[in-house]
Amino acid sequence: MHTVAFLQNKIKNALDLLKFERKPAELYLPIQFALSQGGKRIRPLLTLMACDMFDGDIEKSLNPAIGLEIFHNFTLLHDDIMDQSPIRRGRETVYKKWNANIALLSGDTMFAIAFEYLIKTDPDYLSDILQVFNQTAIEVCEGQQYDMNFETATVVSITDYMEMIRLKTAVLIAACLKIGALIARTSPANIDNIHLFGLNLGIAFQLQDDVLDVFSDENKFGKRTGNDIATNKKTYLYLKALELANKEQLRDLHQYFTVSGLDENDKINKVTEIYNQLGIKEVAENEMKIYYKKAISCLEAIDVEKARKQNFIDFADSLMQRES
Amino acid sequence: MHTVAFLQNKIKNALDLLKFERKPAELYLPIQFALSQGGKRIRPLLTLMACDMFDGDIEKSLNPAIGLEIFHNFTLLHDDIMDQSPIRRGRETVYKKWNANIALLSGDTMFAIAFEYLIKTDPDYLSDILQVFNQTAIEVCEGQQYDMNFETATVVSITDYMEMIRLKTAVLIAACLKIGALIARTSPANIDNIHLFGLNLGIAFQLQDDVLDVFSDENKFGKRTGNDIATNKKTYLYLKALELANKEQLRDLHQYFTVSGLDENDKINKVTEIYNQLGIKEVAENEMKIYYKKAISCLEAIDVEKARKQNFIDFADSLMQRES
Repeated sequence: MHTVAFLQNKIKNALDLLKFERKPAELYLPIQFALSQGGKRIRPLLTLMACDMFDGDIEKSLNPAIGLEIFHNFTLLHDDIMDQSPIRRGRETVYKKWNANIALLSGDTMFAIAFEYLIKTDPDYLSDILQVFNQTAIEVCEGQQYDMNFETATVVSITDYMEMIRLKTAVLIAACLKIGALIARTSPANIDNIHLFGLNLGIAFQLQDDVLDVFSDENKFGKRTGNDIATNKKTYLYLKALELANKEQLRDLHQYFTVSGLDENDKINKVTEIYNQLGIKEVAENEMKIYYKKAISCLEAIDVEKARKQNFIDFADSLMQRES
Repeated sequence: MHTVAFLQNKIKNALDLLKFERKPAELYLPIQFALSQGGKRIRPLLTLMACDMFDGDIEKSLNPAIGLEIFHNFTLLHDDIMDQSPIRRGRETVYKKWNANIALLSGDTMFAIAFEYLIKTDPDYLSDILQVFNQTAIEVCEGQQYDMNFETATVVSITDYMEMIRLKTAVLIAACLKIGALIARTSPANIDNIHLFGLNLGIAFQLQDDVLDVFSDENKFGKRTGNDIATNKKTYLYLKALELANKEQLRDLHQYFTVSGLDENDKINKVTEIYNQLGIKEVAENEMKIYYKKAISCLEAIDVEKARKQNFIDFADSLMQRES
């Protein structure tokens, strides 16, 4: 077993070594830029951690892990075009720094490079990990499409929303773990359980994102709170508030989320006030805890000695207690 | 050995069977639309023909061939966004019929689906065909980036242009053949030769496209001639004309390709007149024939009985004699 810090360091070194010196520079500079913007590098870490828990050779999981991180960053590049986002991780997006065409084509290239790294491993399980990866890539696209649909949909149910975050966020988390487990050649039952652990943890993670966006301490959050409210995002908090609101609150919520030209800070304060009146933070946190507990019970069901699970228990706890 | 018509029919049936009934419909309807727009289906045909020439099991090459066709159509979807093209194959593009975001995300999904089909084959050569495919996908993106760079570049050499068409068009033609040959498990020398046949034929094919765009019979061409001139595209014809022009012709060419607001038909006629004065059609056709002959000599070097090559000889001839 390795420490998380050791695995993180392996990923950092591998990412630092990536060099995109091919031509044309117009294509590769944005890729280099996108991949050097940091981020938590959670996905490749999960691949290495899963491989390590099942006593697999982490060296064999490193290239696929890097491929998964490149894939994740490809999706961010394209999401930023679709959402016209100027800022990510405190810096300009490729879309803003260059333009939409560059972000589009550099993104496509990153998708191909992600595959290149994914297949740099033993041919024995190549077919298995590619099937997981392909299926996941398709589902992530489906999740993003649902997310876009929700922007203009008049009615979005909480069931719809949960399905969207499952596809957009959780399946990739789960796939990273499953691929690490496949490389370690553990049992089918263990592979299923680590996959379900990831799905549930991913959903909990996204629900917490929704809570943090409104209720975090701005100094610790690192960016302005209330952005989801400002941009009329139909998050779990908003959809749950619609469900629980009285007539007056419902009218106000509807108005704040549809009328344009309102003072942004005022809107954020007023909507947050309604959320507070309805106890939305607690409702969301309870929902999050349900998924967190499901995740932990899947982890418990995995057939390896308890000590080998400690990294994942610590990791899940740190995710749940994060403030940004 | 099978007839080309038999192989074409196999591809048509396989493409007709593709059903994209997953949700959300906003994502999958454009994919269904894009793949049902026809086109020559040259790429999957080449995969089957190569597999067949080397006496491989064409059933095993069918899924990868379909994957290659889906990949090709993915690149068209994204190219149409970048070029803001409203029309392709006589019908609205996905970009125009829906919007840029839909074309972007449906395209990404098609790329993932292409991989899904590509890996539906024997695991024995999976790693080999994926390496060819990844490398090719990256090169096609590079080619598209060069093409975009050329739009604003003041100087483009013929060497630059040939490299662009090699990447944007020829490498995929070559990869389709190579993948068919890999599936048939022929010798490394044969694989190299069929690959080089494809590269050279692909370049000849693109040069002919440039010629047809200006000099074809509009009734047989199926669309307006002179579009490359109207849109200031720096084709082989234009770059060669710059090389051969006298001072006056150079000034005129430069003016027609940089000043906006000119009468389009007048511009097309005047530029075509300069091309005629300089004998550009013949120069381009000679260049095309050089690549065609290189292609044929690579085909001749392939170590299979001559009768098995006949399909490719007929195919190459028909490409060279096409009028659209």
